[in-house]
Amino acid sequence: MRFVWFVLFSALLTAGPALMPRPAKMEPLSGAQKVDAAFRIAFQRAAAPRLQRAAARFLERLTAQTGIPLKRGPAASVGAANFIIDCAQTVDAPLTLEENESYRLQVNVEQTRLTSPTITGALRGLQTYLQLVEVSGKGFAAPSVIIEDSPRFPWRGLLIDVTSHFMPVPVIERTLDTMEAVKLNVFHWHLTDDQGFRVESKVFPKLHTLGTEGDFYTQAEIRHIVAYARDRGIRVLPEFDMPGHSGTWLIGYPELASAPGPYSIIHTFGVYDPALDPTNEAVYAFIDRLVAEMAGLFPDAYFHIGGDEVNGRQWKQNASIQAFIKQRGLKDEAGLQTYFNQRVLPILKKHGKRMMGWDEILHQDLPKDIMVEAWQNHESLAQAAQRGYKGLLSFGYYLDHLKLAGDYYAVDPVGGPAATLTAEQKKNILGGEACMWTEFISPETIDSRMWPKSAAVAERLWSPATVTDVADMYRRLDVVTHRLTFAGARHVTNYEPMLRRIAPFAPIDALRTLADTLDPTGIEHREVFQRYTQETELNRLVDAARGDSAVVRGLESDVREWLRAPTPEREAAIRRVLTAWRDNHARLLPHAPASALLAEFLPLSEDLARLGAAGLAAMDLLASRRADAAWAREQAPLLDRTAKVRLEVRMAAAQPVRLLVEGVSR
Amino acid sequence: MRFVWFVLFSALLTAGPALMPRPAKMEPLSGAQKVDAAFRIAFQRAAAPRLQRAAARFLERLTAQTGIPLKRGPAASVGAANFIIDCAQTVDAPLTLEENESYRLQVNVEQTRLTSPTITGALRGLQTYLQLVEVSGKGFAAPSVIIEDSPRFPWRGLLIDVTSHFMPVPVIERTLDTMEAVKLNVFHWHLTDDQGFRVESKVFPKLHTLGTEGDFYTQAEIRHIVAYARDRGIRVLPEFDMPGHSGTWLIGYPELASAPGPYSIIHTFGVYDPALDPTNEAVYAFIDRLVAEMAGLFPDAYFHIGGDEVNGRQWKQNASIQAFIKQRGLKDEAGLQTYFNQRVLPILKKHGKRMMGWDEILHQDLPKDIMVEAWQNHESLAQAAQRGYKGLLSFGYYLDHLKLAGDYYAVDPVGGPAATLTAEQKKNILGGEACMWTEFISPETIDSRMWPKSAAVAERLWSPATVTDVADMYRRLDVVTHRLTFAGARHVTNYEPMLRRIAPFAPIDALRTLADTLDPTGIEHREVFQRYTQETELNRLVDAARGDSAVVRGLESDVREWLRAPTPEREAAIRRVLTAWRDNHARLLPHAPASALLAEFLPLSEDLARLGAAGLAAMDLLASRRADAAWAREQAPLLDRTAKVRLEVRMAAAQPVRLLVEGVSR
Repeated sequence: MRFVWFVLFSALLTAGPALMPRPAKMEPLSGAQKVDAAFRIAFQRAAAPRLQRAAARFLERLTAQTGIPLKRGPAASVGAANFIIDCAQTVDAPLTLEENESYRLQVNVEQTRLTSPTITGALRGLQTYLQLVEVSGKGFAAPSVIIEDSPRFPWRGLLIDVTSHFMPVPVIERTLDTMEAVKLNVFHWHLTDDQGFRVESKVFPKLHTLGTEGDFYTQAEIRHIVAYARDRGIRVLPEFDMPGHSGTWLIGYPELASAPGPYSIIHTFGVYDPALDPTNEAVYAFIDRLVAEMAGLFPDAYFHIGGDEVNGRQWKQNASIQAFIKQRGLKDEAGLQTYFNQRVLPILKKHGKRMMGWDEILHQDLPKDIMVEAWQNHESLAQAAQRGYKGLLSFGYYLDHLKLAGDYYAVDPVGGPAATLTAEQKKNILGGEACMWTEFISPETIDSRMWPKSAAVAERLWSPATVTDVADMYRRLDVVTHRLTFAGARHVTNYEPMLRRIAPFAPIDALRTLADTLDPTGIEHREVFQRYTQETELNRLVDAARGDSAVVRGLESDVREWLRAPTPEREAAIRRVLTAWRDNHARLLPHAPASALLAEFLPLSEDLARLGAAGLAAMDLLASRRADAAWAREQAPLLDRTAKVRLEVRMAAAQPVRLLVEGVSR
Repeated sequence: MRFVWFVLFSALLTAGPALMPRPAKMEPLSGAQKVDAAFRIAFQRAAAPRLQRAAARFLERLTAQTGIPLKRGPAASVGAANFIIDCAQTVDAPLTLEENESYRLQVNVEQTRLTSPTITGALRGLQTYLQLVEVSGKGFAAPSVIIEDSPRFPWRGLLIDVTSHFMPVPVIERTLDTMEAVKLNVFHWHLTDDQGFRVESKVFPKLHTLGTEGDFYTQAEIRHIVAYARDRGIRVLPEFDMPGHSGTWLIGYPELASAPGPYSIIHTFGVYDPALDPTNEAVYAFIDRLVAEMAGLFPDAYFHIGGDEVNGRQWKQNASIQAFIKQRGLKDEAGLQTYFNQRVLPILKKHGKRMMGWDEILHQDLPKDIMVEAWQNHESLAQAAQRGYKGLLSFGYYLDHLKLAGDYYAVDPVGGPAATLTAEQKKNILGGEACMWTEFISPETIDSRMWPKSAAVAERLWSPATVTDVADMYRRLDVVTHRLTFAGARHVTNYEPMLRRIAPFAPIDALRTLADTLDPTGIEHREVFQRYTQETELNRLVDAARGDSAVVRGLESDVREWLRAPTPEREAAIRRVLTAWRDNHARLLPHAPASALLAEFLPLSEDLARLGAAGLAAMDLLASRRADAAWAREQAPLLDRTAKVRLEVRMAAAQPVRLLVEGVSR
């Protein structure tokens, strides 16, 4: 029996429904449940208001993704329903880290049953069903299946930095909707930094009035977002970065600073000097009142105090602070920061909060109930876990590095240096967070920087550790990415308008062909090219390009297959793409004089044409079974040049052509 | 001087900026004004709050369309501003039909000045500037120009039927934003019908509670929309259709009916029997209280009572009503409807409203201050104007007929049968309204049915009567259509998601290639194919296809040019499109078994391949200078078949291929 199940399961593995994250257990049944205008849901037991709202959203989403006008009212009876929700939790309760998110989903031809111990578990199951529904030869349907599912890690977060670039409420809302779709459960809100203090404070109003130019969240908006997230089974973790990254606190309240002001909003990015003065008792009184106010807005048990990148310069230059360090025997500035953290700890406790911070806060003098978030490296997480601290991984999940989905997918919180921990120590690693820092990211571009790659992170954190097949991940991701549009994400829909803006009169398919072959690079390559500030225009081809494109991945896979086992169909498919590349530059060139934004990228457009031509030439040589090492060597400068980062992008197109050229040289 | 100006103006005519509607007068200057992050605006005089909000939206839109992060604060001084708004109206006032919408816009290299007598005029000028800003060889800029502009007609409306399919508030909001972008100024809200009573009534709550299944606008939402429209210089005209199309009134209030109930919501479409009973005094008391309540929500001077399509069946079958007709000497049911209108008229007056209705209400017994909207034909408008009634044209502007932009563009309110009116009579024609009836249109598809074609209607109603060059209209429309995305319209961004839904695994460019060649047809061809109801799924290729595609228009124009004067560039461009068509079916075919939605359209996909092949063959024959009448005759069945409406679409691809085949036959 177990063997049969395994065989079925393996079949699904290679060509099963495009679920992401992949459920823990999945057993296909025969048949499928039709979804049409007659589709009705019912509750097996009294449904709490949060579950009722979730069911209403479920129907709305199902209508959005299928185009079928579903009635919102419930079925006449449980027996008459197509979809029954059987949730044991009938009275709502606050979200916690210990939330049971498990569910069981049995899709039958006539009637589907979703069973869960909690409302949050039901939410997860509803999203799985939405991913099951797909067009078929007989209209929309969900394949019959039994799914038993629960997450591997309890903390699956996404951080958004709203200080470098402010992200309006609709951006946060659609991000929460999309997070729900892939079962992410913590929204880490990086709210304050040298570039902005983005929360309205009624106790210290100069924080947001002087700490922003008007771009902050009102308390009503904060409450709205927290409730919105909670409805979707997502905890909101606020971060108030201290004692560094606190320049905007000091504009209105310079008396908290470690050096004389005046201070002002910083519109550039990096590590700056401003820091709170840990030797000043008024600082702790201030933090006490601020945390008291913010605890009323943010109900979660955790409170993130940042703690990263304190450069200590102001402390070094302040004689009285240096005297304090000596007098208390704190060794150095790091010691002073630990002293600061020790002082902040009881304040957080007093307001019912647990302390959380970046890995800089890790110090043996802090108690074991703090939570450490490793961003500098994976080792710090392993060490923290070894020493008995709870921790999360963010290192490797930095979305502003603009890596490929497969790169993020390969990072496992208990992999790498954490792999050698004992089973008990591994339990201290509670999950991870994808981090969307926004130095060069606007409300328009943020979607394509988060999605779909955060879905790959979500799968890493939800699905069993054994789910590691990258090709299968991409197979599902290429479908799921378009589902996320119906959840609200705009990485698909913002693409064409951004390309049209670059060259309104150029053929859109030619712009798309070029942009589809480019992988925009992350912050490390960006800052080399130009200094990014809040005033930098984020409207260039590098901002529109999404990277990791299915076209190039498909071509590379086709090329590998064709080199191994040539077929006419595969050859035609490869030639189609290469021919389009070869001819593309001639179509764009006439439009460059009218657009500085297009003209900038002409060198890459021209090289794409050369890559297309080289690829076609290589195929001709291969078809005539002629190895031509000399010709292959002549292609080296082109392949080398296009493999390098230029204009802040990598030409993904180079790799499949390189494979063809290498084929010729053999 | 006048001659020089004319020469310059003519030059702009053929390749000027993509403004729509075209301004009344436009004089190009040399140079252009750069738009970058330093761009600041200032007010010459105290700005009313509505103008301040408009300026803030202007900056937001400019950021959206350029990707440049503009600061929202004003310039330090008027002298330091890049854009000065000089509006004579410093105190806001209600919008009226007599609103002065004129403005003068002088764009200079250093500083632009917008001058207007009214706030609404300033709004119109701001939108013109947004259309002037375009990417250039030196970044974003607006060409220097002097524009003096005012509308030809004071009433430039767009009707949305929210009864056949409910349109949620966000749909209305983005429609108003897009209307503002093309200077439409009346939102005609068709709120009640047999399919729904979509307004919350606190006086008669059974109207909306029994007259809908929950899909209605609350009074707070109505107030929000009216204020939202007003901010954009758009009047809101509510329509409460009576005495016919009133089935949903009678569900909760059957005592108003002309035949015994019970009544229920009708989920299909057409002309139905339910009608108010004009002989019942309680009907007028009811209308009095309802209008009193609604007058508090809708401040506009006009109140639309519908009055269309009363089939009179209930009146004919009711002996007491028949007796009433005889007794009062009303002749027939039409006479009874006029009696009804005469009774309603003083009720409207009492509540400060002018009566407006469809052309059925036109009758000599009604006073001259009513407004007639001609939907049945153009003649009724001409007759009304001749008899001294004020009127609007909707006939010819029915968006649910899904005609091409050029078709709507050709319709002039004072053209056709109105062309022979005297100048004085023509003044009675105040404009027109594009009508978006929604029998087979959902919140997802409505954008592509309204836009960009309503921009062509907007130009007809705003620009001088002499602006009639269709080719130039399309040249500008093809740019403006993408600008509307930044105003909020979704006709561009909903396209790919709707195509992906049809066949998630098919190559998206192949789906696009097919859909781009299809012109979906209007209601007359739809109802023949299938019976549409509120439960019909609007997710088929005919729903995704937008029609009037630039690809086919471009091909047709290239073919005409090439037949006249062949060049290698043009030949290559034509062959590129035809080759893509020829090869497209083979790319889609493998995906049809997995999608009923794709399989349905395979016959058209196959014919597109045949059209591509026929076109290429014709080009080969033409290139070899061989006339081949026999070959051309062989293509007739294909050309005839593809010229016909099938599966509710027309294959636009047929026409350019027909031109090539005709070339061969000569």
